[in-house]
Amino acid sequence: MPDYKAPLRDIRFVMNEVLNSEKHYADLGAEDASPDMIDAIIGEGAKFCEEVLAPINQSGDQEGCTWSPEGVKTPAGFKEAYAQFVEGGWPSMNAPVEHGGQGLPESINIVLSEMIGTANWSWGMYPGLSHGARATIEEHGTPEQQETYLTKLVSGEWTGTMCLTEPQCGSDLGILTTKAEPNADGSYAITGTKIFISAGEHDMVDNIVHVVLARLPGAPEGTKGISLFIVPKFLPDTAGNPGDKNGVTCGSIEHKMGIHGNATCVMNFDGAKGWLIGPENKGLNCMFTFMNVARIGTSIQGLAAAEGSFQGALAYAKDRLAMRSLSGPKNPDGKADPIIVHPDVRRMLLTQKAIAEGTRAMIYYAALQADWVQHGEGETQKDADDILGFLTPILKAFCTEAGYEAANHGVQVFGGHGFIAEWGMEQIVRDTRIALLYEGTTGIQALDLLGRKILMTQGAALRNFTKMVHVFCKENEGNESMKQFIEPLSTLNKEWGEITMKIGATAMQNRDEVGAASVDFLMYSGYVCLAYFWARMAETAQQKIAEGTSEGDFYNAKVQTASFYYDRILPRTAAHAQMIANGGSSMMEMDAEHFAF
Amino acid sequence: MPDYKAPLRDIRFVMNEVLNSEKHYADLGAEDASPDMIDAIIGEGAKFCEEVLAPINQSGDQEGCTWSPEGVKTPAGFKEAYAQFVEGGWPSMNAPVEHGGQGLPESINIVLSEMIGTANWSWGMYPGLSHGARATIEEHGTPEQQETYLTKLVSGEWTGTMCLTEPQCGSDLGILTTKAEPNADGSYAITGTKIFISAGEHDMVDNIVHVVLARLPGAPEGTKGISLFIVPKFLPDTAGNPGDKNGVTCGSIEHKMGIHGNATCVMNFDGAKGWLIGPENKGLNCMFTFMNVARIGTSIQGLAAAEGSFQGALAYAKDRLAMRSLSGPKNPDGKADPIIVHPDVRRMLLTQKAIAEGTRAMIYYAALQADWVQHGEGETQKDADDILGFLTPILKAFCTEAGYEAANHGVQVFGGHGFIAEWGMEQIVRDTRIALLYEGTTGIQALDLLGRKILMTQGAALRNFTKMVHVFCKENEGNESMKQFIEPLSTLNKEWGEITMKIGATAMQNRDEVGAASVDFLMYSGYVCLAYFWARMAETAQQKIAEGTSEGDFYNAKVQTASFYYDRILPRTAAHAQMIANGGSSMMEMDAEHFAF
Repeated sequence: MPDYKAPLRDIRFVMNEVLNSEKHYADLGAEDASPDMIDAIIGEGAKFCEEVLAPINQSGDQEGCTWSPEGVKTPAGFKEAYAQFVEGGWPSMNAPVEHGGQGLPESINIVLSEMIGTANWSWGMYPGLSHGARATIEEHGTPEQQETYLTKLVSGEWTGTMCLTEPQCGSDLGILTTKAEPNADGSYAITGTKIFISAGEHDMVDNIVHVVLARLPGAPEGTKGISLFIVPKFLPDTAGNPGDKNGVTCGSIEHKMGIHGNATCVMNFDGAKGWLIGPENKGLNCMFTFMNVARIGTSIQGLAAAEGSFQGALAYAKDRLAMRSLSGPKNPDGKADPIIVHPDVRRMLLTQKAIAEGTRAMIYYAALQADWVQHGEGETQKDADDILGFLTPILKAFCTEAGYEAANHGVQVFGGHGFIAEWGMEQIVRDTRIALLYEGTTGIQALDLLGRKILMTQGAALRNFTKMVHVFCKENEGNESMKQFIEPLSTLNKEWGEITMKIGATAMQNRDEVGAASVDFLMYSGYVCLAYFWARMAETAQQKIAEGTSEGDFYNAKVQTASFYYDRILPRTAAHAQMIANGGSSMMEMDAEHFAF
Repeated sequence: MPDYKAPLRDIRFVMNEVLNSEKHYADLGAEDASPDMIDAIIGEGAKFCEEVLAPINQSGDQEGCTWSPEGVKTPAGFKEAYAQFVEGGWPSMNAPVEHGGQGLPESINIVLSEMIGTANWSWGMYPGLSHGARATIEEHGTPEQQETYLTKLVSGEWTGTMCLTEPQCGSDLGILTTKAEPNADGSYAITGTKIFISAGEHDMVDNIVHVVLARLPGAPEGTKGISLFIVPKFLPDTAGNPGDKNGVTCGSIEHKMGIHGNATCVMNFDGAKGWLIGPENKGLNCMFTFMNVARIGTSIQGLAAAEGSFQGALAYAKDRLAMRSLSGPKNPDGKADPIIVHPDVRRMLLTQKAIAEGTRAMIYYAALQADWVQHGEGETQKDADDILGFLTPILKAFCTEAGYEAANHGVQVFGGHGFIAEWGMEQIVRDTRIALLYEGTTGIQALDLLGRKILMTQGAALRNFTKMVHVFCKENEGNESMKQFIEPLSTLNKEWGEITMKIGATAMQNRDEVGAASVDFLMYSGYVCLAYFWARMAETAQQKIAEGTSEGDFYNAKVQTASFYYDRILPRTAAHAQMIANGGSSMMEMDAEHFAF
C-alpha cells in the first residue's frame, strides 16, 4: 500500500498562484479565509488524512462492511476516525455560522475533500454524503427542521443521505414509485424501496437523516410529481435526541467491485414517518440547487484516483530495477536500471501527473465559481452559475474517466504486481470505477452538457467559456515561450465552437444525433478544458521562472508536464472530432434484434 | 450473472466463411479436421462450456482458492469439471498422436479456448497453463522425459506450469537468480523462489510438472545463462506414478484483483530435484518455440472479455427500461423505452461487438498461421512464422487492451448495477485486467513489435502484412459497396509504413524514440489490423447477400458492424499517429527527481 502524502506544494500552486485565491477570498468578503488561515487549515487537514485516514484505507477495503439485522458495522478504525473528524470541527467548516458552522467558503472544503478522498475514498463518503441532505434542509427546510436536523448535520453528530434510486430506476427518476401518504399529524408515511444508498446505514453516529424522493397521492406522473421528505432513522424526541426507531431499515448491503469500506444499502421504507421539505412536487427542482456541488464532489474521485495512483507508481518506478535504458545504462552499478528510465513508463507516469494536476486546476477553479454562486449577487452570481453549470458535467464525467485511466496506468507501471492487492494499486481501480456511474453516468453527463447546457442555450454556455479561453490566448499572443500552447489551444477553441454548430444543425434533422455525438463531445470538451488549465499553469510557472525563483525545478516541471500534455494527450481530440463528424447512422441503423444471432 | 451462450454462428462465420477453414485443413493434410468433425467438436465443447464451466464462474470468483500448508483447494466444482474435461478427452485434442494425442490442428483448440475462456477464465487457466510445459517437453525433452511426463500432460492426468518470474524480476529475466546445482545422479538441485505461478499448486490432479528457469553454476550472466529444468511436484516412481514429494512447495497464494478461482502461487524450490531439458544456457531460446502460441492464448482473454461482457450488456440493454428515445417513444405502452434505443448505449454495445467479432477474426487467422508453423515446411512454414511473429505482440497487447475496454463498457451499460457483483460484469473487468500484464505487458509487447519485429527486420515484417492488405484493397478496388472500407483502409495501410519509416529514422538519432512511440504504434497497428479483418468480414457478408441467402439479417449486421467500426472506432488512429509524430522529448526531458515535490 503506498503512503499518502498530501501534495501541498501542488495544491498551493493552483490555489495561490494560478487561481489567486487571496484576491478571490478578499473579493468574496471571506475575511476569515486569509492565506495564513487557509494554509493552517490545509496543513492540519493533510495531517489528519495522512496519519488517520490513509492507514485504514487498505484494511477497510479488505475487511469491508458487515450487515446484520441490527445494522451495519464499518471496518476497524472508521468509527474512531470519524469521531476524531467531528472532534476537530471538520464537518462544520463550510456551514453557515447561524447553524453552528464556521462559514468558510465551499472551495476550501473542496481542497479538504481532495485530501480525504485520496487518502481513503470509502471513509470520506460517510461525511461526504451528508452534503446533499444538509444543503436541502439549509435551502428548503423550515426553521424547526433546521433546528432539529441541520445543526446536528453541521456538527457531524448525525450524518445524512439522499435516497433517489429505486430498483427499477436510476437515471430515469421520473418512474420512481415510493409513496408518501399524509398522516393526521401533518407528517407523511413513506413506503418504498431505495437502493444504492451510500452510507445509508452505519455505526458511526447516533442518527441518520434520509432525504427521500417520493410521490404524494395524485401527484403528476414523471419528474414533475416528485417531492422531498426528511426521514430520520430515529425520530427525534422533544429534546431533539434520537428517540423511537422509525420505519426505515437497511435490508442488505451490496457486494460490489470496490469502495468496500462504504456501505451501499438497500433501504426499506415501511410507512416510515417523514416530513415534507420544500414545495410539493418540486423535489427535483429543489435538488438542482446543490447538484452542481455534489457533482464536483464526485469529480474529485477522479482527481483522487490520479493523484493516489501517481504517488504509488512514481515511488515504484524509481525503486524497481528492470532492463537497461535503450539509450545506454543509467544505473551502471546496479543489475538493471530503475524503470523510470524507460520511455513508456514515463509516458504512463506523466499521463497520471498531467491528469492529477490538470483536473485539480479545473476542479478548484469550479470550486471558486461555486463560492460565487453561494455568496455572490446579481451578474457576478449569474456568471459564476453559468460557468459552473457548463463545467459540471465535464468535471463529473471527464475527470472521473481520466482518473480511471490514470488508476489503470498505476496498475500497469507495477507490471504483474499491480494486480496484487498488497500494493494498493488495484484497489484504486476498483474504488474509482463507481465514479463513472453514480451521480449520473458519463452518458447522462454528456447529454446534460450537449443537450441541456449547450444546445438548449443555443451555445451560450459554451461561448462563455470559449470567450474566456480566447481572451487568454489573445493575452499571450506575443509570448514566444507560450506559443507551443497558445497555437493549438486557440485552434481547438475555435474548432470546439464549429463542432458544436455542426451537431446543432444535424440534430435539427435527427435528435438521435445529439446522443450519438454526446460522449465524444464531452471527452473532446474535457481535453480542451484541460489544455486551457495546463496553459494557465504553464503561464504562471513561466512567469515565476522569469521573475527569478529558488524553485526553478518545481516550475520547470510544470512547463514540462504541460508540454507532455499538449504533445501526447491532447491529440486525442482529433479522434473524437472525427468520430463526431462521422455521425450516428452506423450506430442507429441496426435493429435491436440483430445485435446477436 | 449473465448466461454464457457460445456464439457458434459467429465462430462458424469466421472459420468457415471468412477464413475458409475447410480448404485450410485440406491443404494442411489434416484429414480428421473435416467440417463435420469440427462442427461436432465445437458443438460438444460449447455444451461443456455453457453447462459445466459457466455455472461455476461467479461462485469460483466469490469462493476463491484456499491455501493451507497441505496445498491449495480450488473452488467448489472446479475439480469435478476438470475430471469431466479429462474424461471427455479434451486435453489431448491438439497433441501429437505419438504421445497419445488426437493430432488435431492447434487452431481448433483455439476455438475451444475461446469458449472455455469466456465461460470461465479462471478455470481455463488450469489446463491452459499446461501448454508451455507440454510444448517444451515435446520439443526438447528426451524420449524418457516424454514418456514420463508428456503422456500424462497430454491425457490431462497431470498439469504443468512455467516457472519464470522471481520477486526481483518479471520482464527482465536476465537477472533471475534461481540456481541449479548438479547432483551425482545426473539430476540437479533447484533452489530459488518463483512468484506469480498460475496453477502452481491445486487439488485437481495427482501431480504437477513445473518447467523452471534457473542458472547452472558458472553460467553466463544475463539471458544467455538460463537453462530449463523439469521439476515435478512428486517424483515419478519406477511405474511412472507420483512417488516421493519433491522439494518444491507453494508458500502462499496471492490476494489479487481478479481470477480468484485460479491460484497464483509463490513456489519455493528448496534443493528440489530437477532434470535439464534442452541444451545448457539455451533456456530462453527453447521457450521461444511456443511463446507465440502462448501469447495467442492470452490474447483470447481479450476476446473472451469482449464476448462475455457483450452478451451480458446486450441482454440488459434490451430488458432495462429508462427514459424515452430522443427521437420519440419506441415502447409507448411501457413506462419507458428499453435502453438499447439510446445512441450512447448502442455506441457501447457496438464497440463491444466490433471488438469481440473483430479480435475473433484476427486471433483465428493467427491460429491458422500457427497450424502452418507447426505442420508446414519450407517457405510456407517460414511465411506463416513471419506473419505470426509480427501479429503476436499485436494480438497479445491490442486484443487484451481492447477487451478490457469492452469489459468496461459492459459495466457502463448496466449503470450503477454494473458495479454490483451479482450481475457479473465487474468480475469480467477484474478478471481481464491481468491480461494486460502477464505474458509480457502491453509495453513489453510494444517494444517487441516495433523494436525487435519491425525495426530489426528493416520493416520486412510489417511489409509482409501491409502487402497482404494492399492486395486485398486492390482486389476490391472496383467494388462500390466496399468503398467505404477500402478507401480508409488503403490510406491507413500506406500511412502505417510511413509512420514506421519516420520512427526508424528518428530512432537512428535517439534510441529512446522507439520506446516513446511504441505503445501508440502498437495500438495504431491493432486498429489497422482490425480494420483489415472487418473489411474482410464485410466482403464475405456482402458476397453472401449478393449470392442470395436466408440469413440476410445476420450478414447485414456484419456489414453494419464494420461500418460502425470504421466510423466510430478506427478514427482513433489519427490520435495515435499525431502522438507518435510529436516524439518523445516531452516525456524524456523531466529529471526523475522532478516528477514530484
